[in-house]
Amino acid sequence: MTLPIIGLDEIARVATPDVILSAVRDALIAHADGRTSVPAPMVLEFPRHAGDCHVKAGYVDGSPYFAVKLASTFASVNNGLILVVDATTGAPAAVLADEGKLTAWRTAAAGALITDAMTPADVDEVAVLGTGEQARLQVEWLRHLRPLRRVKVWGRRPDAVAELCKAFAADGLDARPDGLEGSACVIATTAARDPLPAEAFRSALHITGIGTDMPGKGELPVEVFAGAVIATDDHDQCLDHGDFGNAVRAGVVADDADLAVGAVLRDGVDRAQRSVADLTGIGAADAAVAAAVFFALR
Amino acid sequence: MTLPIIGLDEIARVATPDVILSAVRDALIAHADGRTSVPAPMVLEFPRHAGDCHVKAGYVDGSPYFAVKLASTFASVNNGLILVVDATTGAPAAVLADEGKLTAWRTAAAGALITDAMTPADVDEVAVLGTGEQARLQVEWLRHLRPLRRVKVWGRRPDAVAELCKAFAADGLDARPDGLEGSACVIATTAARDPLPAEAFRSALHITGIGTDMPGKGELPVEVFAGAVIATDDHDQCLDHGDFGNAVRAGVVADDADLAVGAVLRDGVDRAQRSVADLTGIGAADAAVAAAVFFALR
Repeated sequence: MTLPIIGLDEIARVATPDVILSAVRDALIAHADGRTSVPAPMVLEFPRHAGDCHVKAGYVDGSPYFAVKLASTFASVNNGLILVVDATTGAPAAVLADEGKLTAWRTAAAGALITDAMTPADVDEVAVLGTGEQARLQVEWLRHLRPLRRVKVWGRRPDAVAELCKAFAADGLDARPDGLEGSACVIATTAARDPLPAEAFRSALHITGIGTDMPGKGELPVEVFAGAVIATDDHDQCLDHGDFGNAVRAGVVADDADLAVGAVLRDGVDRAQRSVADLTGIGAADAAVAAAVFFALR
Repeated sequence: MTLPIIGLDEIARVATPDVILSAVRDALIAHADGRTSVPAPMVLEFPRHAGDCHVKAGYVDGSPYFAVKLASTFASVNNGLILVVDATTGAPAAVLADEGKLTAWRTAAAGALITDAMTPADVDEVAVLGTGEQARLQVEWLRHLRPLRRVKVWGRRPDAVAELCKAFAADGLDARPDGLEGSACVIATTAARDPLPAEAFRSALHITGIGTDMPGKGELPVEVFAGAVIATDDHDQCLDHGDFGNAVRAGVVADDADLAVGAVLRDGVDRAQRSVADLTGIGAADAAVAAAVFFALR
C-alpha cells in the first residue's frame, strides 16, 4: 500500500480561501438536502492521561473521496490526522497531517458563510466574543466575503483581548477592546459552559455561535433565540448539544424553529430580520475540505 | 509527522500465533472485566459502488496503544488499514497495512481459544461448516492449542469442500467431506442468513459460531442454545446481532443466559456440559493485536 502523508505546508499551498469556502458551502447545502452521510462520531477517553480521541467520518454524495478524521487532545496537546479514502473503491488514498488546521479553516469558513448570508449587507462592523484561534479566523474569513471596517473584541483575559486587537489592527481593522458594547453582528467563539454577558448581544441583528462543539457547552443567552430567524448546521446535533438545544430546553423556542444553514446559503434569507446561527461542526464539511485539498494536490 | 506504514510481510514476521493468541486472550478477559473501551462502530455506505466502510476503534486499559480500524468492501474487494495511536499522548504511531489479515487472525484466535476452552480435552476431531478463509484458519489455530486428528468439512459448493479437504490433508489431518455428520466439536464459519442444517449439530458437545458479524446474519439453529452453557464475546453485541440474540428472540433462552467468553477463558468451565460460543468480533481484540504487533516491531 502506498499512502502519501501530506504535511501542512503542502496542504496550505492548495487550501486557499476559495477552495475551502466553496467546499464548505457545497457541503452545508448538500447536508441540508440530505445528500451527505455522517455517522455518529466515536469517542475514546483516557482519563489517566487527561486525554480523549474523537473519530469522525463524513461523505458528500458524489464526491470522489470520503474522510475519516482523528482528533485527540491529551493534557491540552492536540494531535490528529485526516484519512482520505477513495469513495469508489474504498482504498485509502492519503493521510492529511494537517495539525488540526483544516478543522479550524472549515469552522471559520462555515461561520463566515452564514454570518455573511444573514447579516445586512451594509454592516461592516462585528463584535467578537472570545480571543482564541477562531476569534481571529472568523473575522479573517468573513473579510473574504465582505469588507469590514471595525471589530470589537471581548474576552475574559485583558492581555488576550489587547493582543487580538493588535493583530486585527495590523490587518488594517479599526480594532477596539469593547466587545461588550456589542454590534449589529456578533460572533461568539468561546468554549463557555455558561452564557456570555447578555449586554454583548443587545444591539445584534445577527449572531453566529460556533462554540458548542460538544455536550455541556453553551455560550449564547437563550433569550437571543426568541423571535429570531434560526439556522443550524445540523438539526439533531444542535438540538442535542448546540445553543439551539439549550434554548429549546429552556422553552424559549420550539424544537422545529430552525432552518438549515445550507438552506439559507442556497436560498438566501431576509437579512432585515433578527437572526441567530448555531454551528456545531459537521463531518461532511471535514470530508469536503479533505477531498477538495487532496483533489487539488493530485 | 512521521507515520511509518508497516506492510504485511513485516507484520507477519512478528505476528506469531503466540503473540496473537496471547493478545486476544488478554483482550477477551479484559473485555469481560470491563477493562476495555469499544465505541459503537461507524458505517458509511456507498450503494452506487456496492461499497461500505466500517470504522472500529478499541482500547484495552493500560495498553500503550489504541487502534482505529478501517475496513471497506467495494464490489467484493476488501481494503483497509489499522491506525495505531499512542494511548498516552494521542499521537498517531503507525499505519498497519495488514490487508485484513490481523482481523482474520484475531477472529481465528478468539474462536480457537474458546473452542479449546469449552470442548472436552480428549476430543481430537472437529466438524467445520463453511469453506472460506475462516474455515481453514479456525482449524489451523485450534491446532496451536490442542492436537487434532480428523476434520470433517461441510459447505454448499462441493468443489470448495474438496479443495479445503485437500489443504487440510496436506497439513496432516484426516480430512473428510462429510461435515453434515457432525462431530463432538462443531465450528460454524459461514455468512449464512438462515440456519445451517440441524443434523450437523446433533452430536455436538461444543459449538462455536463466528459468522454473525453484522445484523441480518444467523447460522446456528436456535435450538442448539437450549440447555447449553452459552458464552458470548460481547453480551450486547451478541444480543443485537449474534446467534445468541436470534435464540433469545425465538424464546429459546433468556437474555441473561450467557457467560462472557473472557470469563470462561479466565475461570474455565465444566467441559462435560454441552456448550455454545457466539463470537461477533470485538474492537478490543483488534486494538490488542495491533498494539502487540506494533510493540514487537519497535
